[in-house]
Amino acid sequence: MKAVIPYKKASAKSRLSPVLSKEEREEFVELMLNQVIDTLKEAGIEAIDILSPSMYGLENMKKANVILDKSDLNEALNRYLEQAEEPIMIVMGDLPLLSPDHVKGIISTKEDVCIVPGKGGGTNVLFIKNPSGYRVRYYGSSFLTHCSIAEKSGQNIEIYDSFLAGTDIDEPEDLVELLIHGSGAAKEYISRKFRLEISRGRVSLASI
Amino acid sequence: MKAVIPYKKASAKSRLSPVLSKEEREEFVELMLNQVIDTLKEAGIEAIDILSPSMYGLENMKKANVILDKSDLNEALNRYLEQAEEPIMIVMGDLPLLSPDHVKGIISTKEDVCIVPGKGGGTNVLFIKNPSGYRVRYYGSSFLTHCSIAEKSGQNIEIYDSFLAGTDIDEPEDLVELLIHGSGAAKEYISRKFRLEISRGRVSLASI
Repeated sequence: MKAVIPYKKASAKSRLSPVLSKEEREEFVELMLNQVIDTLKEAGIEAIDILSPSMYGLENMKKANVILDKSDLNEALNRYLEQAEEPIMIVMGDLPLLSPDHVKGIISTKEDVCIVPGKGGGTNVLFIKNPSGYRVRYYGSSFLTHCSIAEKSGQNIEIYDSFLAGTDIDEPEDLVELLIHGSGAAKEYISRKFRLEISRGRVSLASI
Repeated sequence: MKAVIPYKKASAKSRLSPVLSKEEREEFVELMLNQVIDTLKEAGIEAIDILSPSMYGLENMKKANVILDKSDLNEALNRYLEQAEEPIMIVMGDLPLLSPDHVKGIISTKEDVCIVPGKGGGTNVLFIKNPSGYRVRYYGSSFLTHCSIAEKSGQNIEIYDSFLAGTDIDEPEDLVELLIHGSGAAKEYISRKFRLEISRGRVSLASI
């Protein structure tokens, strides 16, 4: 099997722009990417591709193979799946709470497809045993779409239910989850800039 | 063992007020409460207490025992734990995605305490094998607080990692999760009022 991580560093994570500058966001996504790669490797996955529209930020990448594809995410991933000859795990690069145990759990699924839902109908991880018979459609409610693509093509699906793997870092409130539940370089980066603040019974982010 | 559900119907779920009226929110929390009770019963839990500051909305409750306590949540729960003579599972009433399998998984923990984190540092379920030696402190980052209370009193803790059990329904965006992942009366109630709308690649709530 192989893992593929779609990745784009340039002007990444615009929804974090209320709290992080462009330079900070670019630095932060690189830390998250490296953490996801390390997690995959710790889970025993050796073959890791990064699928990116640009070499920016990947010039010195030694831990994974870089595939350049300037098409949009879905087109690039579907071309990748079409050519794949083994099971493929598509892992988003913004999952610093993903652990090796999650990865092992996902790839040991008995079903044809295993999906980790993210917040708001997203798809955080998608493991596909027969990639040439599957097509992805990210954006929107991709979780429901990916479930129905599997069903329509007669492939059984497992929904992998995890709060931590289900937490993709898109918005400032997601950084709260990283500070509470995270570890490693991505968490350290954020904890140098923010601390948790508790006001009126709720937790939010405060600049340091 | 026993389960206890803290509950207050009057003017419940104020953070849903941008999308639901007071009457609707009160109707909705009652549906969620009943769904949580049914889930517990399906998991084989017979002894269920509802801890409430008022009988409002509980006048005809037949599925569970009602305990009135006008103190604040923490005071009432700690009094309850103090008097408990068996393991206690504190379950929030706003967890319509909680399943019997989650409940069985939580109560079969090998540790002294099992905690289900919710978004933003919340505690959605807290299972305590030795309740007389434990005190709760909800609000704020209760997840971290509850972990540290366990550690300080020498009790081992399991963190139960679930996206679905981790989804408490507090804000309009949580209703998106209910529509995507839910079933039962609470989901049906919301799906009569709202549908999922996909705009600019993201899922949101639209009135019907």
